[in-house]
Amino acid sequence: MSALGDIAVVGLAVMGQNLILNMNDHGFKVVAFNRTVSKVDDFLEGPAKGTNVIGVRSIEEMVKALKKPRRVMLMVKAGGVVDEFIDAIAPHLEKGDIIIDGGNSNYDDSIRRTKSLAEKGLLFIGTGVSGGEEGARRGPSIMPGGDPRAWPHVKEIFQAIAAKAPDGLPCCDWVGEDGAGHYVKMTHNGIEYGDMQLICEAYQLMKEGLGMSADEMSAVFANWDEGDLDSYLIEITSEILGFKDDDGKALVEKILDTAGQKGTGKWTGISSLNLGVPVTLIGEAVFARCLSSIKDERVQASKILTGPKGKFSGDKKAFVQDIEQALLASKIVSYAQGFMLLREAAKEYKWNLNYGGIATMWRGGCIIRSVFLGKIKEAFDRNPGLSSLMVDPYFSGVLNKCQAAWRRVIATAVELGVPVPALTTALCFFDGYRSETLPHNLLQAQRDYFGAHSYERIDKPRGEFFHTNWTGRGGKVASSTYTV
Amino acid sequence: MSALGDIAVVGLAVMGQNLILNMNDHGFKVVAFNRTVSKVDDFLEGPAKGTNVIGVRSIEEMVKALKKPRRVMLMVKAGGVVDEFIDAIAPHLEKGDIIIDGGNSNYDDSIRRTKSLAEKGLLFIGTGVSGGEEGARRGPSIMPGGDPRAWPHVKEIFQAIAAKAPDGLPCCDWVGEDGAGHYVKMTHNGIEYGDMQLICEAYQLMKEGLGMSADEMSAVFANWDEGDLDSYLIEITSEILGFKDDDGKALVEKILDTAGQKGTGKWTGISSLNLGVPVTLIGEAVFARCLSSIKDERVQASKILTGPKGKFSGDKKAFVQDIEQALLASKIVSYAQGFMLLREAAKEYKWNLNYGGIATMWRGGCIIRSVFLGKIKEAFDRNPGLSSLMVDPYFSGVLNKCQAAWRRVIATAVELGVPVPALTTALCFFDGYRSETLPHNLLQAQRDYFGAHSYERIDKPRGEFFHTNWTGRGGKVASSTYTV
Repeated sequence: MSALGDIAVVGLAVMGQNLILNMNDHGFKVVAFNRTVSKVDDFLEGPAKGTNVIGVRSIEEMVKALKKPRRVMLMVKAGGVVDEFIDAIAPHLEKGDIIIDGGNSNYDDSIRRTKSLAEKGLLFIGTGVSGGEEGARRGPSIMPGGDPRAWPHVKEIFQAIAAKAPDGLPCCDWVGEDGAGHYVKMTHNGIEYGDMQLICEAYQLMKEGLGMSADEMSAVFANWDEGDLDSYLIEITSEILGFKDDDGKALVEKILDTAGQKGTGKWTGISSLNLGVPVTLIGEAVFARCLSSIKDERVQASKILTGPKGKFSGDKKAFVQDIEQALLASKIVSYAQGFMLLREAAKEYKWNLNYGGIATMWRGGCIIRSVFLGKIKEAFDRNPGLSSLMVDPYFSGVLNKCQAAWRRVIATAVELGVPVPALTTALCFFDGYRSETLPHNLLQAQRDYFGAHSYERIDKPRGEFFHTNWTGRGGKVASSTYTV
Repeated sequence: MSALGDIAVVGLAVMGQNLILNMNDHGFKVVAFNRTVSKVDDFLEGPAKGTNVIGVRSIEEMVKALKKPRRVMLMVKAGGVVDEFIDAIAPHLEKGDIIIDGGNSNYDDSIRRTKSLAEKGLLFIGTGVSGGEEGARRGPSIMPGGDPRAWPHVKEIFQAIAAKAPDGLPCCDWVGEDGAGHYVKMTHNGIEYGDMQLICEAYQLMKEGLGMSADEMSAVFANWDEGDLDSYLIEITSEILGFKDDDGKALVEKILDTAGQKGTGKWTGISSLNLGVPVTLIGEAVFARCLSSIKDERVQASKILTGPKGKFSGDKKAFVQDIEQALLASKIVSYAQGFMLLREAAKEYKWNLNYGGIATMWRGGCIIRSVFLGKIKEAFDRNPGLSSLMVDPYFSGVLNKCQAAWRRVIATAVELGVPVPALTTALCFFDGYRSETLPHNLLQAQRDYFGAHSYERIDKPRGEFFHTNWTGRGGKVASSTYTV
């Protein structure tokens, strides 16, 4: 019989299969298990043929095939399935054994699982794994959190299989306790939603606004990939736009324009609302997917609601350059919002997050990997306590430089009737964030008028509240126990 | 001893006090109770002096003072306090007695409470009450949901004290089962967040963009209150802008520009995300409050991030008219989104909502009362199954008519650097909603490229999914069990 396995992977969908092959490449002996056992055979006779992967047909067999402390990594659908597997596997494990959940689980679940497994003497890790099938195979970004005692036992494997940033650092480090790994992964995915939406808006502006062909746009994205926007998503967008269907036409134009949103993007929005952090760009990106999904309603509305008749009449080449700058500026806002969210979450959940380290983990392997993240790392190196990326000297310089082009893009889109919700919310946030004064003095007056909510004054110390009887009719009772 | 009371109200903050006085005005005998008993005395010797209100000092005394079936209305802080009172009061009640929660409770709590009290033979009503202190006193909008068996016993009191719409109909009717009343109230409040934010943006555009004085703006709002925007919030905004502090200057300019968001606006955003409905305007309104609250960060950023230098150079009077049209169009979008949300919630929770009836309830008494809601009522009268307000003949006509002005307003705000997130997200939504094609074909291609998520094609039936090996390097395994 062969030597014992270093780690078991449960779940042989594409991500699980590719992680196993990646681990195998790095010299680890992997035990592969799947609830539908035929998948194990298919895998061993297919992609895993000729590797050291050990296929097993039951949880008992899997546990027996592992070195101690046993490491069992679940690559199964997030949600109840994870709990089902934990409940099925845990009774077969011993104190100090480790269960790793590598799915896109909710951080709340990971907080709960860390605690409940610790009570059984087992160590839980909830880890984000990003990079899609390619990343899993060649080197993903891995964001582990959970029980800190487990980290020394998985560090070697995880850092070996993780992507390496341009400076050779692994795109994997310990994120923090209990749900921190999945929270950071969730935020990563939310940012990914934002990046994808921004690219879609640039594409629609060029296509609908400028009448450009898929090949022309492919060339533009390839060009952008050489500059400040250099990133995986820009690169694959260029490739997608250049990809031809069997008839020689661009495949992308034959794909239905309806996108789903059911997971981590939505959670990012919900957590932003719960923590009171204005993560507007991801919010708009999630809602844009919702709007895309009601295609029939849009088709009906397109027959009733008309748009502007005007066509773009300016310099197309210059406008494409403007779009590039608008994208870059909007991306800075989105990442600034994402890191604002992490900062509030760290306060709320008492995680000691290393923001520069998070940027490092995202520099390679994952979907949002980019040169840009290296700049974020540098910003946090300059000032680990940075309140917002937008006020970092490098990023504030870029924002100040890009904003004229950014404003031209939005104004043009608005005139042409091309919807660019993410680009515009980013600009509105930029303008709001740099406003010493927002109009919420009026809003506070309204709330005090109709609800006796009271307000603070600019000429009095904060924390001192005033109520005005605006009409002479209302009472003098402040609304202390009834909150609108 | 006096005759028994018709209803008890627990909680003597401003809303509770005013509801009691309102009920008393309509000939109902009200029993008043408060946990801090001194408030009962203060109330009886103050605002309730000379009324038929019965003050009680304990729950036992309260229960004994009531006719059967007993009606006990809680006007206390939403959350755990409601459960505490229910737990304290329920043991003193008999089968068929009714507990009403008139606070801004979460609909999930009302669903739970309806069920748990029904198990004890008690009937629960969770009702929205809107209108602030003035509304509570003179006639609020009341949105009751819960146990339908309770409705006949509270209908007379509720409809008597409720506001009356211009045609005399009471702004109160049965909304639906369990959490429906509080859900509709939550949505009302979300819409209120949106309306207030829109008004704030109009104010900021006039103040920062056009350099108008508070008195000038007060006159503008008074003028708008005569037209299509005729509404309570526009009216009080005019009054607020005209209100002078002791030194003769506008009080509004002395109020601190930081607004909180902790309740129903946030819940509306969360429910929108959970149900996948793009309620973008309320989302931006909630986030705008969050941004307003980080004043210190904004002050710091205002010193680092610069804005455009240009000033408004057009016709101010014409631009103010443009703003009026932009407000009206954005308001249509916001209400359309709100009713989209109600439609999805009705599906999800199996409520049989009467949308025209909901518009009727909001026509008077509440914070968002307006002439506009009468138009919404008419739209649902024309077509009760209307898919979106935006495609109703009246509203689509207004949108098509207003859009040129709306686009001028956004383009100008963007050029001047005045943040108008709600006005712009509304326009983006309008442009997206009337788009037969959105750019999410590219997004689906990206997801298929990096995650093997598969896509549908425009030249194939819906429900048929395709995966492309975009690079020639990826595998053929679709990502069926691992969702990004």
